[in-house]
Amino acid sequence: MKPTFPATGLNRRSLLTALALLPAFPHVFGPVSALAQTTTTDPLPAWNDGAPKRAILSFVQATTDRASANFVPAEARVATFDQDGTLWVEHPMYTQVVYCLDRVPAVAAEKPALKRAEPFKTVLSGNRAAIAKLSMRDLETILAVTLSGMSVEQFGSEVKEWLAKARHPRWDRPYTELVYQPMLELMQYLRTNGYRTYIVTGGGQDFVRVYSGDVYGTPPEQVVGTAGGTHYGYDAKGRPLLTKEPRLLLNDNNAGKPEGIHLLIGRRPQAAFGNSTGDRQMLEYTQVGGGARLGMLVLHDDKEREYAYGPAGGLPDTRVGTFSNDLMKEAGSRGWTVISMKSDWKRIFPFEQA
Amino acid sequence: MKPTFPATGLNRRSLLTALALLPAFPHVFGPVSALAQTTTTDPLPAWNDGAPKRAILSFVQATTDRASANFVPAEARVATFDQDGTLWVEHPMYTQVVYCLDRVPAVAAEKPALKRAEPFKTVLSGNRAAIAKLSMRDLETILAVTLSGMSVEQFGSEVKEWLAKARHPRWDRPYTELVYQPMLELMQYLRTNGYRTYIVTGGGQDFVRVYSGDVYGTPPEQVVGTAGGTHYGYDAKGRPLLTKEPRLLLNDNNAGKPEGIHLLIGRRPQAAFGNSTGDRQMLEYTQVGGGARLGMLVLHDDKEREYAYGPAGGLPDTRVGTFSNDLMKEAGSRGWTVISMKSDWKRIFPFEQA
Repeated sequence: MKPTFPATGLNRRSLLTALALLPAFPHVFGPVSALAQTTTTDPLPAWNDGAPKRAILSFVQATTDRASANFVPAEARVATFDQDGTLWVEHPMYTQVVYCLDRVPAVAAEKPALKRAEPFKTVLSGNRAAIAKLSMRDLETILAVTLSGMSVEQFGSEVKEWLAKARHPRWDRPYTELVYQPMLELMQYLRTNGYRTYIVTGGGQDFVRVYSGDVYGTPPEQVVGTAGGTHYGYDAKGRPLLTKEPRLLLNDNNAGKPEGIHLLIGRRPQAAFGNSTGDRQMLEYTQVGGGARLGMLVLHDDKEREYAYGPAGGLPDTRVGTFSNDLMKEAGSRGWTVISMKSDWKRIFPFEQA
Repeated sequence: MKPTFPATGLNRRSLLTALALLPAFPHVFGPVSALAQTTTTDPLPAWNDGAPKRAILSFVQATTDRASANFVPAEARVATFDQDGTLWVEHPMYTQVVYCLDRVPAVAAEKPALKRAEPFKTVLSGNRAAIAKLSMRDLETILAVTLSGMSVEQFGSEVKEWLAKARHPRWDRPYTELVYQPMLELMQYLRTNGYRTYIVTGGGQDFVRVYSGDVYGTPPEQVVGTAGGTHYGYDAKGRPLLTKEPRLLLNDNNAGKPEGIHLLIGRRPQAAFGNSTGDRQMLEYTQVGGGARLGMLVLHDDKEREYAYGPAGGLPDTRVGTFSNDLMKEAGSRGWTVISMKSDWKRIFPFEQA
């Protein structure tokens, strides 16, 4: 069967760029903000006072105050969050792609024939230049092989084990620590106000579900992601099990985001948060519902504390998590709020103490 | 595009049987049970005291009492319910199939070419004998045309309108009144004890979501069903919308039930309820999780108050909602509880006053 697992929105050039950049980042910490508020009455202490924070506060007020014309009953309070670049770091490379490359040796140990076959041979060589030249098709083959063929439980164990030891090249910390403190506060604030917070990610649904509860407070049933099929069968002892297949069911990027939201949630979100062109349709779909709707986009404009990429705002076009000029224009015309990491966030990561 | 929407588990012979039976049923009400309990302390008043009721009560006790060895934390309390034949009447014909046949005139009015094309010509003729002879392929064509091509919102309106006026041929009541009172009590009892109740149905996910909240207390995000793809696009005014496609994503029957549960919920249920061979894999998948698990199957053995069909238990083999002898055997070996509608349920429908 031809593997059909997509590279979660990564295009060929982005892979090359990302791989090329991988060894280039110094392991430095972002500066600790001296301005973090500590008052217990502020639900969003890692946010500077500014348009984005005010937009959040007035949206919640408008949709939860029974006297408001835009009051939203509790059952309809749904907020959706992109993950890569919106909730956690996506540079220099999507975390799940790093996982898949890291899995190759283990998969090759189980299936020795792969050691002599491309693109696995190249990945196993450790030759960074050669790895950076892998084609999009090669990458799809790697994703298909490392994300399917095992039981759902085995996959979960493998991801868990990897997350415990893998480190981001720049911060030398587990990937799950590289989450944005302001967004964690936002999710919690929305939940406190009766919202159910969903992750709607181009990343693999099964991958993200492994840690989404611990890291974001979103249980597995509130993760919508790129999903392959599973096959129900029985093991040698007759015990039922679900095996992951390379057959793509949902490519949860671009138009796939509203489609995935409809499939898994069956409701239009009241608020949606993203950071790239892959989130455009999700924000459009959210907004068209009428009443008070909140659409926000994180702009990565903070090279010192995190990364800087666009090309919107004159930032470098790195092709990983692209925020296009068109998206910026649409944000302006539709009234979506653009969050400047540099100006709007006091702290970026939880490990920067307030 | 070849229509691929499945007939929700209906096989050719079942369609013929069901259509043939359609005009034969007298419009009678089941007798009102004189034994209904009215005490407020019984959470399951429509259930007779017996093995099934005791199994439910001890399962809930075992999984919600912190002192129990089989205690289940609140977030993992998931119970899944088949719909047709488990929560509401499925004879003489699955409600959604009746809907699709009833929709043909409206669809043909919009697309006049269909009036001259089979199988639509036959359905429009009103000739019951000819309709009963339609092949499975014909039925798939009818389902594909009546369940796709419109926006998600338009489909919802059409179903709502139909439900308001359609009547079951035997009881002359809306289909949504033909729900089983004991199962409604069971769902409520589980929810009161912290369980989230999901519908996992071979019926169409979008169809069931229209009424699942009002009828069962299950919101759209807790309905897993047979699902086709949607297409995100824009209408003539540039307004985003999702259009239903005939492309099948999930056939939520048999092995498709655990696969659908994994896709939409991402957790193994703690309890599962069904009534036919299409529910077998869901019950197996539930049980293999270990600890206290509850698997129950409704046996339709009450011709007077509802219907009688098997062929398990020597009941007629009607091929709609088949409870096979093999399933009965597996229930025995795995310790699943079989619910006799005749012996275990005091009342069948809410409209029978206690």
